[in-house]
Amino acid sequence: VSGAGAAPPDPGGTRPPAGADTVYFLSDYGRHDEFVGVVHAVLRRLAPTAAVIDLSHDVPVFDVRAGAFLLTRAVPHLGPGVVLAVVDPGVGGARRGVVVEVAGTGPRWFVGPDNGLLLAAAASGGIRRAVALAADDGPDGPGGVTFDGRDVFAPAAAALCNGADPGDLGVALDPSSLVSVPDPVVEWSSLEDGRRVLRSEVAWVDRFGNVQLAVTADQVSPAARAIVVGPGANWPDLDPTAAGAVPVVHTFGDLTAGEPGLLADANGHLALVVREGSAAARFGLGPGTLVELIW
Amino acid sequence: VSGAGAAPPDPGGTRPPAGADTVYFLSDYGRHDEFVGVVHAVLRRLAPTAAVIDLSHDVPVFDVRAGAFLLTRAVPHLGPGVVLAVVDPGVGGARRGVVVEVAGTGPRWFVGPDNGLLLAAAASGGIRRAVALAADDGPDGPGGVTFDGRDVFAPAAAALCNGADPGDLGVALDPSSLVSVPDPVVEWSSLEDGRRVLRSEVAWVDRFGNVQLAVTADQVSPAARAIVVGPGANWPDLDPTAAGAVPVVHTFGDLTAGEPGLLADANGHLALVVREGSAAARFGLGPGTLVELIW
Amino acid sequence: VSGAGAAPPDPGGTRPPAGADTVYFLSDYGRHDEFVGVVHAVLRRLAPTAAVIDLSHDVPVFDVRAGAFLLTRAVPHLGPGVVLAVVDPGVGGARRGVVVEVAGTGPRWFVGPDNGLLLAAAASGGIRRAVALAADDGPDGPGGVTFDGRDVFAPAAAALCNGADPGDLGVALDPSSLVSVPDPVVEWSSLEDGRRVLRSEVAWVDRFGNVQLAVTADQVSPAARAIVVGPGANWPDLDPTAAGAVPVVHTFGDLTAGEPGLLADANGHLALVVREGSAAARFGLGPGTLVELIW
Repeated sequence: VSGAGAAPPDPGGTRPPAGADTVYFLSDYGRHDEFVGVVHAVLRRLAPTAAVIDLSHDVPVFDVRAGAFLLTRAVPHLGPGVVLAVVDPGVGGARRGVVVEVAGTGPRWFVGPDNGLLLAAAASGGIRRAVALAADDGPDGPGGVTFDGRDVFAPAAAALCNGADPGDLGVALDPSSLVSVPDPVVEWSSLEDGRRVLRSEVAWVDRFGNVQLAVTADQVSPAARAIVVGPGANWPDLDPTAAGAVPVVHTFGDLTAGEPGLLADANGHLALVVREGSAAARFGLGPGTLVELIW
Repeated sequence: VSGAGAAPPDPGGTRPPAGADTVYFLSDYGRHDEFVGVVHAVLRRLAPTAAVIDLSHDVPVFDVRAGAFLLTRAVPHLGPGVVLAVVDPGVGGARRGVVVEVAGTGPRWFVGPDNGLLLAAAASGGIRRAVALAADDGPDGPGGVTFDGRDVFAPAAAALCNGADPGDLGVALDPSSLVSVPDPVVEWSSLEDGRRVLRSEVAWVDRFGNVQLAVTADQVSPAARAIVVGPGANWPDLDPTAAGAVPVVHTFGDLTAGEPGLLADANGHLALVVREGSAAARFGLGPGTLVELIW
Repeated sequence: VSGAGAAPPDPGGTRPPAGADTVYFLSDYGRHDEFVGVVHAVLRRLAPTAAVIDLSHDVPVFDVRAGAFLLTRAVPHLGPGVVLAVVDPGVGGARRGVVVEVAGTGPRWFVGPDNGLLLAAAASGGIRRAVALAADDGPDGPGGVTFDGRDVFAPAAAALCNGADPGDLGVALDPSSLVSVPDPVVEWSSLEDGRRVLRSEVAWVDRFGNVQLAVTADQVSPAARAIVVGPGANWPDLDPTAAGAVPVVHTFGDLTAGEPGLLADANGHLALVVREGSAAARFGLGPGTLVELIW
């Protein structure tokens, strides 16, 4: 890899050092097949000293938006390195493979398909530049089936670990041309009596059944209680002081076991929770469901 | 972290060296979310040379006792290092976060919630001291929601890897105040004809359907055959020489395919098994079920 | 471990260096129990500098043949090291534990039970020699239950990493005596009108529902379309130009969303696929099912 040598001069010395020692790997490969292990093996072979951290491989199959949301939640907690992310319903089609280089103290490069999986998480660090990876010829030659995670993206991530410049790996592209996924629904309105209504998409339901809304907590004025109007929780009485209304609390410890609440979660989002229980089951909510809050 | 410097002198040189190079990580986080990956990333950032070994992240949600049993089974096979264990229904409540320091040749420190998850496994090594971790202020400030695995326990584990003394991380507490989980049921009685009856809780059912009882094999006198009385195997004929009785064997090889048996398993516990089959399905047993053995 | 010193001289210098730095680990242990973590811990303790890569631990319980197929698919993508593979319905019985040494640039040693799990993958590299691992005495003494992954195979893999010679670990055996699993069904015949019929076993269904046939693509002459006769897709009209026939394509991009096709997959096998969908569901196929293709 000739990346470091080919890079332009850096007289001011502000350029971060080339290379990386950590790969953060996200996919929808699951664990039943050998896909994840084979990608690890390729990284081990090509970048033997890099550590590989699995963010998750259980993104729902082909659900690019769920993968993008997961990556956006995770990236603020990652150190320097390379994000390798593959949720790729368009493999074998016309979508580009890309490397996106970002600023900031977290991962410097994002490698994967240009289908919206990477953009939001990469943009949070400030995009510096992007390249389209050179087309790959699969085992069946040009036009054949490829396992891009193994054959294209992992080798690119390994090359970046080894000090390659993204420009060595493909052709520069205009970052504004990168594909994005639709933003989650967050809408505000008012009832006739002046009460505010927040209509929000459920961005995520975690293993514990906590329901993270797309809205961040800092967008919401605090109130003592809120009414939840969702597929599984349509109270006929819309009086927020009624028993059906959900308390707005600071933490799980403010609730009794089995009690629902609204709080700012550990990602800074508004979330519907049930202490030691599943808010998703209680309110009939899942990823993508719309829920209304009135207070 | 100033731990090594702050430690009291060790004139005799018997103190083990500070720090650790391996973290053993157990949780009920599952793998669908990014929780496990984010904790790995925090450890990578704060203790970059430590290896992290996942014991399991599929402990049933909030099942502290199942996590404690798993940890107790695993610890005899671990080398030096730090156990990071999080099954934590009381997160955000009043329960303490703790570091427990133990003697022995296995893990020296156990980090996690003080809810019984750690105690039995730590006690097997001989507890030297314990500290309550300093309270954490979440992203929402004091009182807000925290992801303690990420924000409290992983940083504490990383600090221990880096040579911190537990005393740097919190306030000493009386080890006898550490919370425990209820011991599993193991009761002995006799029938009128003098035959012994063992009533034991099922401590664990593994992926293969092997049913580990809470009783260890060295507590049981050998016998040729035993009658199993459980939810799914109540033989009307309690004659241990009858066909329904289960042979007591040394190993799976003493059984024919599909045949049930009782043996001392690889953890030294008495276990009901079916060769190349599931004893849990055969006898209708699961974790926490009670089973009676007569012989 | 005295392996390196005990090895015969190598005057020509053609012998590869002793030892290994990577273990590739495959099993049917699942992730709910601590088995995988404990084996990692044993490797960490005995061969602390070796990296351990999990190929998969979700091989169906006791399905030696599925494990053998997975290993055969994975091995061409692995670098040097030791394969540690455990799918072992015969644990505690008479089957041997073995180390198989192979030539080539991939893994040099395969460690596991001699039940067919290892043979096909090892043979692809060219078998040099094999040893039967010395019998293990479990915690209950000779004849007791053993957790061979933890107690026998992981220590053997660690010893190989540390430079042991296989001859230090057991007794040489005749490689031709190694156990194999039945080859998958691949049969050719002809219809009266001269059309060719391929009857093939389904070797693998991946997470995405792609159906890999046992036949490799280079065994099949290209044709424009093929008729699929399977449990869930028996078209009454056997005219390959009819609408029910499946196009033979080069890659997923040649299909529209939801359209089925036949292609050479990323392992070089013929595969039935549905773009952005599940061919397994569409055609009612699973591992071991027989499917007929006519063209």
